[in-house]
Amino acid sequence: MIYLDPLRLKAIILSTLVDCGVSEEAANHVAESLVTTSLRGVDSHGVNLFPHYVRAVKAGRIKARPNIAVTQTGLSVARLDADHAFGHYAGSMAMAKATELARQTGIGAVSVSNSTHFGAAAYFALQAANADCIGLALTNADALVKAYGAKKSFFGTNPVCFAVPLDHEEPYCLDMATSLVSWNKVLTFRRRGEKIPKDWAFDADGCSVENPDMSVSLNPAGGYKGFGLGMIVDVFCALLSESVISKDILPMFTSPIEQRRKISHFFMAFRISNFCDVNRFRSSMQSMVDRVRTLEPIDADIPVMVAGDPEKYHQQMRIKSGIPIEEEKYTELIAVNAEFSSAVIR
Amino acid sequence: MIYLDPLRLKAIILSTLVDCGVSEEAANHVAESLVTTSLRGVDSHGVNLFPHYVRAVKAGRIKARPNIAVTQTGLSVARLDADHAFGHYAGSMAMAKATELARQTGIGAVSVSNSTHFGAAAYFALQAANADCIGLALTNADALVKAYGAKKSFFGTNPVCFAVPLDHEEPYCLDMATSLVSWNKVLTFRRRGEKIPKDWAFDADGCSVENPDMSVSLNPAGGYKGFGLGMIVDVFCALLSESVISKDILPMFTSPIEQRRKISHFFMAFRISNFCDVNRFRSSMQSMVDRVRTLEPIDADIPVMVAGDPEKYHQQMRIKSGIPIEEEKYTELIAVNAEFSSAVIR
Repeated sequence: MIYLDPLRLKAIILSTLVDCGVSEEAANHVAESLVTTSLRGVDSHGVNLFPHYVRAVKAGRIKARPNIAVTQTGLSVARLDADHAFGHYAGSMAMAKATELARQTGIGAVSVSNSTHFGAAAYFALQAANADCIGLALTNADALVKAYGAKKSFFGTNPVCFAVPLDHEEPYCLDMATSLVSWNKVLTFRRRGEKIPKDWAFDADGCSVENPDMSVSLNPAGGYKGFGLGMIVDVFCALLSESVISKDILPMFTSPIEQRRKISHFFMAFRISNFCDVNRFRSSMQSMVDRVRTLEPIDADIPVMVAGDPEKYHQQMRIKSGIPIEEEKYTELIAVNAEFSSAVIR
Repeated sequence: MIYLDPLRLKAIILSTLVDCGVSEEAANHVAESLVTTSLRGVDSHGVNLFPHYVRAVKAGRIKARPNIAVTQTGLSVARLDADHAFGHYAGSMAMAKATELARQTGIGAVSVSNSTHFGAAAYFALQAANADCIGLALTNADALVKAYGAKKSFFGTNPVCFAVPLDHEEPYCLDMATSLVSWNKVLTFRRRGEKIPKDWAFDADGCSVENPDMSVSLNPAGGYKGFGLGMIVDVFCALLSESVISKDILPMFTSPIEQRRKISHFFMAFRISNFCDVNRFRSSMQSMVDRVRTLEPIDADIPVMVAGDPEKYHQQMRIKSGIPIEEEKYTELIAVNAEFSSAVIR
C-alpha cells in the first residue's frame, strides 16, 4: 500500500484532465470529488476510478467539452441535459441550481439526463447541506440488483444519499446503495478468494451463493423494500428526465468504453429556514445524533455510530496518513498521468 | 373469521365517529382510510384499529374538534399544526395543500406537527398520485427499531411511502416500514406460538431472538441502511416541524390513552408535468413495472410482483368476499358502535 498526499493527488488529476481538454471547472469538480471521497474512506468511488475516467474521456464516452443545458420548468423545478459531461460536474451544476431554486421557494429539484458516472452521491448532498439545506442526491446505474422474486437483475445499485446540517461538526450523511452490500464488496472477497455471506449475492439462476466468483447479482437491502426503493430511484432519475432505466444502461467497466451510458440523476435541496429556525434545527439534529451515539453498544468496544461517522473517522485518519492506494492502482495512475499530461506530477 | 361488507363497515365507523362529536369531513377520512386499507389487505392499519381510535377520542388523546392551522412558509412549503386531530384527516389536508403548492411551483411539501396515528401512509401518497403527482408520505412513531450497534430501540418503524401514477391501473405504491418486518408480524407469530426468523427482532439486551415473547425491538431493514432511513424520516417529520422524535413518543397501545402523542408527518407532491409529459411518463412507468412483472420468477408458481401488487390482489378478492375480521375484533367493533352511536348499524 502506498500513501499519497491528497494535494498531490488532486494536482495529478487536475493537470491530466485539463491536458485531456476538460475545462478547469469540470476537472476541479472531478478532482475534488475523487480526493474527498478517498479521504472519507470510500475507496470504491474515489481516486481509484480516475484511470477509468481518463480512458472514458479519450474514448469519447465522457465529453471533455459538453454543451450542458439547464431549463427551468417550474418555480421549484429544472431539468439539466448533461450532454455526457462528467457526472461530478453536471451533478454539481444541478445541485447548485436546486439550491438556488430552494432559496426562492423553499425547495428545488433538478433532474439530470444524458450524464455519466457521478462518483459518490455524498459529494452533491453535502454541497446542499453546507448551504443550510437538506440535500438529496440519487442516481441510477446499470442493472446489478436481482429483482425481488426473479432470477435476474433489473435495477442498479441506485443509491440514495441524504445530507443534513449538524451544529458543531460536518453534516450527517447517509449514502447508501439500495442493495444490501455494494458490488465492490463482492469483488474484494473475490480478490481475496474468500467466501461471501449467504445473503449478499446470487448466481445466474438467482440462487444465493457463497462463492463470489459465481455472483452475478446483488441482494436488495431488506428484500422487496430495497428493490422498491431502487425502482423509486429510477422513477426520479430516468422517468422524470425521460431517460433510460437501469436495465438499459451499459455496464461501466465491461462495455466498449467509447459507448455512452446515459446515466440519469436527481437532486433536491430543502431550505431549512422555510420550515423552521435553522439554528434550532441544527441543534435538534445534533442532539438527536448525539443521543444515538451515546446509547449502550452491543459490543462495549464499538461505540454506536450514525451514518457518515465511519467516513468522518477515515477522514481524520487519512488527513494525517495520506490516501492509501494499492501499488497496482498507483502504477496505473502514474502511467495515465505520464501518457496524457504535459505536467507530470512527482 | 367474519366477512363484512365494506359499505356497512364504513357506515358503522362514520356514524360512531360523528356521534362522538367528530366532524363529518374528518370522520369520512378516517372511515375511508380504514376501509380502503383493509380492502388492500393491510389488516394492521385498517378497521381493526377503529375501537382503539374511538377510545382515544373519548379519552381526549385525539381531539374530535381540533383547530387545525395551516401556515404557508414558502412558495413550495407549508406547515400544518394538527392540534391532535385524527392523523388521517390532518394528513389529507396536508397532502391537499402539498398538491396545491405543486400545481404552482412543481413541488409542494407540508410538515405536520401535533398529530396522532395516521393509519396507512399509502392513503395519502395515493391521493397525490391520483392528482398526476408523485406522492410521498412519511410519519414517525414510538421507538421500536433497535439502533444499529446498540442494545435498545431508538426510532419508530418510521414508514416511507411513495405512490406513482401508472397508465392503465391504480398507482404503483411502495409503503414500507424502515424495519425489516412490522411489529404486527411479530405479534402474529406470538399469538400463534410460533418461532420467528432470527433476523426479525431482539430481546431487552439487543440479542437476536427466535421467541416472539422475548422480542422488544425490531431489526432495521438492511442494517444501518434502514436505521439511517428511519433517522431521515424523523428529520423530515419531527425536526422540520419542531416536534418530538420517535424516542420521545409514547407507545400507541400501552401508554395511558388520555395522553397525547405528538406524532409528526411529512408530505410531498411532485407535479409530473413540471418535469415531462404526463402521458409519456405514465406509459414509461407502466412499461417499467410490466417489464419487472414479466421477468422469469425464482419459483415458477409465483409471478414476480412490484410493490403494491399484493395489495391490489387483496383488493380484487375482498371487494368480492368482504373484509375478513376475527370474531373477537368484530365483537369489539359492534360493542363500540352500540356504546357510542345512536345509529346502530346492523
